[in-house]
Amino acid sequence: MRIAILVAYDGTDFSGWQVQPKKRTVQGVLEEELSRALGKKVVLTASGRTDAGVHAFGQVCHFDAETTIPASKIADCVNPLLPGDVKVLKSKEVPPSFDANRTAKRKTYRYTLYLSEREHPLYERYAVHLRDKINLDRMKEAARMLEGEHDFKAFCASGSSAKTTIRTVYACKVEREGNKLSFVVTGNGFLYNMVRTIAGELLDIGRGRLTVSDLKRTLETGERKGVGKTMPAKGLALESVEYEAFRFEG
Amino acid sequence: MRIAILVAYDGTDFSGWQVQPKKRTVQGVLEEELSRALGKKVVLTASGRTDAGVHAFGQVCHFDAETTIPASKIADCVNPLLPGDVKVLKSKEVPPSFDANRTAKRKTYRYTLYLSEREHPLYERYAVHLRDKINLDRMKEAARMLEGEHDFKAFCASGSSAKTTIRTVYACKVEREGNKLSFVVTGNGFLYNMVRTIAGELLDIGRGRLTVSDLKRTLETGERKGVGKTMPAKGLALESVEYEAFRFEG
Repeated sequence: MRIAILVAYDGTDFSGWQVQPKKRTVQGVLEEELSRALGKKVVLTASGRTDAGVHAFGQVCHFDAETTIPASKIADCVNPLLPGDVKVLKSKEVPPSFDANRTAKRKTYRYTLYLSEREHPLYERYAVHLRDKINLDRMKEAARMLEGEHDFKAFCASGSSAKTTIRTVYACKVEREGNKLSFVVTGNGFLYNMVRTIAGELLDIGRGRLTVSDLKRTLETGERKGVGKTMPAKGLALESVEYEAFRFEG
Repeated sequence: MRIAILVAYDGTDFSGWQVQPKKRTVQGVLEEELSRALGKKVVLTASGRTDAGVHAFGQVCHFDAETTIPASKIADCVNPLLPGDVKVLKSKEVPPSFDANRTAKRKTYRYTLYLSEREHPLYERYAVHLRDKINLDRMKEAARMLEGEHDFKAFCASGSSAKTTIRTVYACKVEREGNKLSFVVTGNGFLYNMVRTIAGELLDIGRGRLTVSDLKRTLETGERKGVGKTMPAKGLALESVEYEAFRFEG
């Protein structure tokens, strides 16, 4: 049978999602402990990779396994074996047609910063420090401009193997709550480093280093020159993955 | 001259505030790097100790030092020398009568829990997992009962050397925000483990293991028997310390 799992992790001490020789990866740790819990080799397919240092509140994966453990209890069987920085939040049987990667319809990422005069030890793990004054209205205007179907070539790290650089951003929101600033981006797919580059662009517009017109031109020409820098991994978290006709309840 | 500093730390990897031989402590790390930054031995007096694993958003300390560095810039001089888990948020010259410990008027602690079916890696560092259903109204009633002047003998870990176990709690609030539950306690002083024991008591009342009448009797008799258990250090943070006629601006 096919099982889908909802996974959360603190990316700080992982070399990203994907299995790599001699590296501690989320996929590697999960496959090892799921295999131990179920007594057979488990190979995971995730909605997509996340880079080293990137966190996840709701990564979705699937795997095939014959087991007498009820699907919904697999989470409780594997969690005691897993380290504190990765846990299975839900497990559920899905039809064989479900594919965590191919049938994913929408993904939401959150990029988090905190504004303060000086670095704060209790915010540093999951957010990036920002000292500069920012113009929130200008950032919101820029975020709205990113919504829709665009060629995001300029927001894609070089060396990407994507067939097309056209993506649809369903929503791009700038949220300010106290000293916390978040960019929440929902799309049908993301190019390599796309959210971290969007974060850098919005930030540069917020602090006046770039203008909304610069962003407009970048989207039109696809030229990476003048785009905001790629922001650090630790501020990024995969919030959720949505599928047609499937969700983990609760 | 006398300098006051506002300090924040992630207590996870510290053996508490107070210097101990061969242990990594907040005081030890701060004194070492302040001494290095100022070129002379610095000895810190804090508002009070915090235990191993307890965090701080606003610990206050003072020290005496002759230096040509403007007091407000000491934070920026020492922070590059400090590790990521402890930073000085503010520094300021204070009159010689200021004493971070003796002149402290009120302290506020926050105890944080998160409610979810399963452990969550991104909440575990600064909060304690709670699976049980809780009755918020009953907890709020109990919290109100703790406010005022009481003999908190029953909420004090044995072995405490406090002269009196009478303390005034100015405010005890239960806050629920999404899946986050916090107890925020402000008082004129706290006995050893008092906030962590109050947290255990409120929690037991919330999940129906104890009643508000049990709490009433405990406050009257001072008997520790039947009091909620002392909760783990990682959920506790020193939020702020207040002084008469002194505050860090901003």
